[in-house]
Amino acid sequence: MGAIKESNVVYESIGEGRTRYLAHTDHLMMAVIDFNDGPTDAPDPPHAHPHEQVSYVATGEIIFYLNSEETKLGPGDIFTVPPNVPHSVRLLTQHVRLVDTFHPIRDEFIK
Amino acid sequence: MGAIKESNVVYESIGEGRTRYLAHTDHLMMAVIDFNDGPTDAPDPPHAHPHEQVSYVATGEIIFYLNSEETKLGPGDIFTVPPNVPHSVRLLTQHVRLVDTFHPIRDEFIK
Repeated sequence: MGAIKESNVVYESIGEGRTRYLAHTDHLMMAVIDFNDGPTDAPDPPHAHPHEQVSYVATGEIIFYLNSEETKLGPGDIFTVPPNVPHSVRLLTQHVRLVDTFHPIRDEFIK
Repeated sequence: MGAIKESNVVYESIGEGRTRYLAHTDHLMMAVIDFNDGPTDAPDPPHAHPHEQVSYVATGEIIFYLNSEETKLGPGDIFTVPPNVPHSVRLLTQHVRLVDTFHPIRDEFIK
């Protein structure tokens, strides 16, 4: 808890060309995700989870898919995801960094 | 809900040279804060709140103060703040952008 320097984190691989590092309090989790496998031809398969999600686009450009909406997002933009609603992204640039935050915490990320 | 483009947000002034924009779900809030009044000679007065906080340093450099610890942080670094623990930052660069997240939401930010 307290301060987490990126220079000290261990990047966890979450797929080919994708890594993550985490920080959390009891009920709030932040996951910084680097996608280095863009641009992608199609969205990732939609997924859903019971956790609320708010995400900040730190680097790169994406298309964000929620319900029937598609929105192009870039640095400084935000997306929100209610519980259990399928959502997805497509990468428009080679590198994308998303700062995903969740409530409650994603226990499966810290098993 | 859904997608929030920074180009469409209304920046709220939260002090001389400081602005904020927000997004939230029911129990999770994100506040993107731009400090344009750095560097500062001293830390902001410490403050505390019952909300859990996790923050991402998007731009610039700060010193983060929590309890008796001081940590220099820059882009990609994260800090966490448990409920009711006094904390503060000092700006080391002219511009700093923090992506602050809170649980529960800061109702006083959206009244």
